[in-house]
Amino acid sequence: QGGYPQQYGGGGGGGYAQHPAAAYGGGGGGGYGGYAPPPQQPPVSPEIQNIFRNIDKDNTGRINNRELQQALINGRGDHFSDTACNLMINMFDRNKSGTVDIYDFERLYNYINQWLQVFKNFDRDASGHIEENELTQALTQMGFRFSPAFIQFLITKNDPINRKEISVDQFIVTCIQIQRFTDTFRVRDTEQKGVITITFEDFLGIALSMCS
Amino acid sequence: QGGYPQQYGGGGGGGYAQHPAAAYGGGGGGGYGGYAPPPQQPPVSPEIQNIFRNIDKDNTGRINNRELQQALINGRGDHFSDTACNLMINMFDRNKSGTVDIYDFERLYNYINQWLQVFKNFDRDASGHIEENELTQALTQMGFRFSPAFIQFLITKNDPINRKEISVDQFIVTCIQIQRFTDTFRVRDTEQKGVITITFEDFLGIALSMCS
Ligand SMILES: [Zn+2]
Ligand SMILES: [Zn+2]
Ligand SMILES: [Zn+2]
Ligand SMILES: [Zn+2]
Repeated sequence: QGGYPQQYGGGGGGGYAQHPAAAYGGGGGGGYGGYAPPPQQPPVSPEIQNIFRNIDKDNTGRINNRELQQALINGRGDHFSDTACNLMINMFDRNKSGTVDIYDFERLYNYINQWLQVFKNFDRDASGHIEENELTQALTQMGFRFSPAFIQFLITKNDPINRKEISVDQFIVTCIQIQRFTDTFRVRDTEQKGVITITFEDFLGIALSMCS
Repeated sequence: QGGYPQQYGGGGGGGYAQHPAAAYGGGGGGGYGGYAPPPQQPPVSPEIQNIFRNIDKDNTGRINNRELQQALINGRGDHFSDTACNLMINMFDRNKSGTVDIYDFERLYNYINQWLQVFKNFDRDASGHIEENELTQALTQMGFRFSPAFIQFLITKNDPINRKEISVDQFIVTCIQIQRFTDTFRVRDTEQKGVITITFEDFLGIALSMCS
């Protein structure tokens, strides 16, 4: 009945090792340990400085959701969604202001690039989208076993009219959300049966804390 | 273990009968049956027309999220949140464009006013916010029995720094989300025990369809 990865970060097929989810839980990039700022900020590369300045249109030294959306275009020629930018900014925004400074941005930038790489690997026909069979393969390589009906649900949710494909920003959001909900489920599924029993209040608490 | 209302729309204390949730599921206002537009649009009152024109700054004949946010101020002097406006627009936006025309708006406007009335009834100290004891009373009157820890969770989620009170737009969002998740839970809790058993895929499906 729908399997989910039994191990963290480890095994899985080719694409899995590169999966940014590994970077997400903490650890990740170069010398950083977690979300707390290091005592002295390490220097940011000139390349990142340039990119940052280009995105920070209002020159506040912080990039907000709107600026990030403007900077990121998906394979449909649309800007990344509000939801996608929110989700990613909140992951790296250390002072919880809803914006990222240049140090946050460096990590965010690397994170997005990892996702773009993952996406490219799975978009085998290079259409710029992920179609059903590609999504099935992607999730399988990430360690999930979902029914075809569930894969179709994911696609329809993201592409309600054509029910055919999902864009890169939708792919990122979908994967991050699945990852989070899986973690939430896993801690309750102590016997790893793929089934949990849950009270009304616990259910509500999960639902409310997961939804923005 | 956390009770939830066993009956729809009916009983409950004073405030419950006015609860906009009744209008939500369908039915509701004057002659409208559901979300489908009536064959001939009924006339919109001059008052609503005026309000609509004031909010529709760009004169497109549709109000978008941004315009609605600008028009609605909570008791903290802040604009209503993006989330709150999104949630409400999506409830009345018949053509799924993320905007409302004047007919959608009339219903949205009435809906918001019903919520404001509910909020005022529960904000007994007229602080412009709902504090812990007020929230407990509000949810009790809506038919819920939550633990003090859960009430505190709701407040902290909305007011992470002071952990003290929630604003009117947060109150609306919280109530609508609780209502929806309760419906989702209820259909699975066939024996009305307040506990459900759920598979991984079903859990993920719920979580993903509820979160934007
Ligand atoms: Zn900026
Ligand atoms: Zn493709
Ligand atoms: Zn407009
Ligand atoms: Zn109050």
